[in-house]
Amino acid sequence: MANSPSGESVLERADRILAAFTAEEPRLTGAGIAARAGLPPATAHRLVREMARRGWLDRVEGGRYVVGTRLWELANRSSRELGLAQAARPFMGDIHAVLRQHVQLGIVEGREVLLVERLSHPRAVPVRSAVAGRLPLHLSATGLVLLAHAPEDFQESYLEGPLPALTELSPTDPGVLAEELARIRVAGHALQTGYLETDTAGIAVPVRGRGEQVVAGLGVITPAGDPAARAGAIVQALHTAAHGIRRTLRETRRETAE
Amino acid sequence: MANSPSGESVLERADRILAAFTAEEPRLTGAGIAARAGLPPATAHRLVREMARRGWLDRVEGGRYVVGTRLWELANRSSRELGLAQAARPFMGDIHAVLRQHVQLGIVEGREVLLVERLSHPRAVPVRSAVAGRLPLHLSATGLVLLAHAPEDFQESYLEGPLPALTELSPTDPGVLAEELARIRVAGHALQTGYLETDTAGIAVPVRGRGEQVVAGLGVITPAGDPAARAGAIVQALHTAAHGIRRTLRETRRETAE
Repeated sequence: MANSPSGESVLERADRILAAFTAEEPRLTGAGIAARAGLPPATAHRLVREMARRGWLDRVEGGRYVVGTRLWELANRSSRELGLAQAARPFMGDIHAVLRQHVQLGIVEGREVLLVERLSHPRAVPVRSAVAGRLPLHLSATGLVLLAHAPEDFQESYLEGPLPALTELSPTDPGVLAEELARIRVAGHALQTGYLETDTAGIAVPVRGRGEQVVAGLGVITPAGDPAARAGAIVQALHTAAHGIRRTLRETRRETAE
Repeated sequence: MANSPSGESVLERADRILAAFTAEEPRLTGAGIAARAGLPPATAHRLVREMARRGWLDRVEGGRYVVGTRLWELANRSSRELGLAQAARPFMGDIHAVLRQHVQLGIVEGREVLLVERLSHPRAVPVRSAVAGRLPLHLSATGLVLLAHAPEDFQESYLEGPLPALTELSPTDPGVLAEELARIRVAGHALQTGYLETDTAGIAVPVRGRGEQVVAGLGVITPAGDPAARAGAIVQALHTAAHGIRRTLRETRRETAE
């Protein structure tokens, strides 16, 4: 592999350049890219120009760059994430239409839940997450349900921490969290109140793929004060949707995250 | 830039490897990747392994590879395509709910329309296109409306061809196509019957962004035999949705394809 004097490969530097772009800062100058990617300006500029030639970055007005349309196409057209999102979307739409709250679908990526689909209601409670955004697994219901069904060695290493907290209610004790994961496996759903934000709660169920393994978590975010009886109805609706998604995954040829 | 003996850069080879994966063939072996990418096996294997280390490819059962979750995340989280798709989706959902046909949103990419969002009805007429899929601009209504509003020099070079045909009805004469583009600009919408498939028709309108420029095409695919009166109603619904999308784009901070 072609390495720089620092031993870093071209792909590693390209990865750092792509990672410089975020939902909050989607347009960057060449100098901004170099600074965020931690690369010498000359190195960054040379690579940015080549990435722009290939359509991995696109140049927009003001001489700024954005992540390129070609890269978007390459990353999506065969992706398991898009296949999963498309299988789930009609069922998420049904839940969304009835509950009028955020409905989201997430997968495990590292120690976080990566949201691959999201339907939001304009009047729903405002929340942190977005499509292609991440949250720590133990702080969202969608993440908790994924963590509870992850391989045992992954759960063990996850519990070793770090377990960051975002509110006073965020669980940070590994023993307490392990008990919660056990309860989630027995109950078949996860429920968190105030772990991410003090005024929101989350309810999520596992989505199984063609086999028995859990391929995604399906969750709803609600205001923290919702009555418990409503949670029971939401759990039922989520389980029904998760069954529908599984049936669709079994019927489609497209590969999914399993 | 680090080049191979053939003068090809690492990024160019990585691009060819990613392009080997398609919606039809989302899982490839190392040997399959090398063959499709036209790379010597040793070169392909070395690069595939490094891409897998970075999460640009993921290894799945059977030793096959798929496009990686990390690349999906990098390509989506700040993308104009996702921003546009999310702004459009509620309005596309409204049309979809009423018409019960495919609704799609496309942008220009090279000489083709790249579909960035798609809502399909299970009972709608089956069609060729998919999200992150492409169609020649002059063969789909969504593409035609984009072509008609593209810069003049782009239109001229497009008309120089090649103009591939998919059915006997596909337009292949540059003069006839130029007249059609002029009519689309006057009428404010595009209508094609049988250009892509003999049994489907398409109707599309332009979507403008924050300024006056057209940033996307919004189209509906219907059975070819639909009465003309219905087309008028569809055009009205599409214009209303296009206005809604524009309003949303103006209200959101996220960058879009303009």
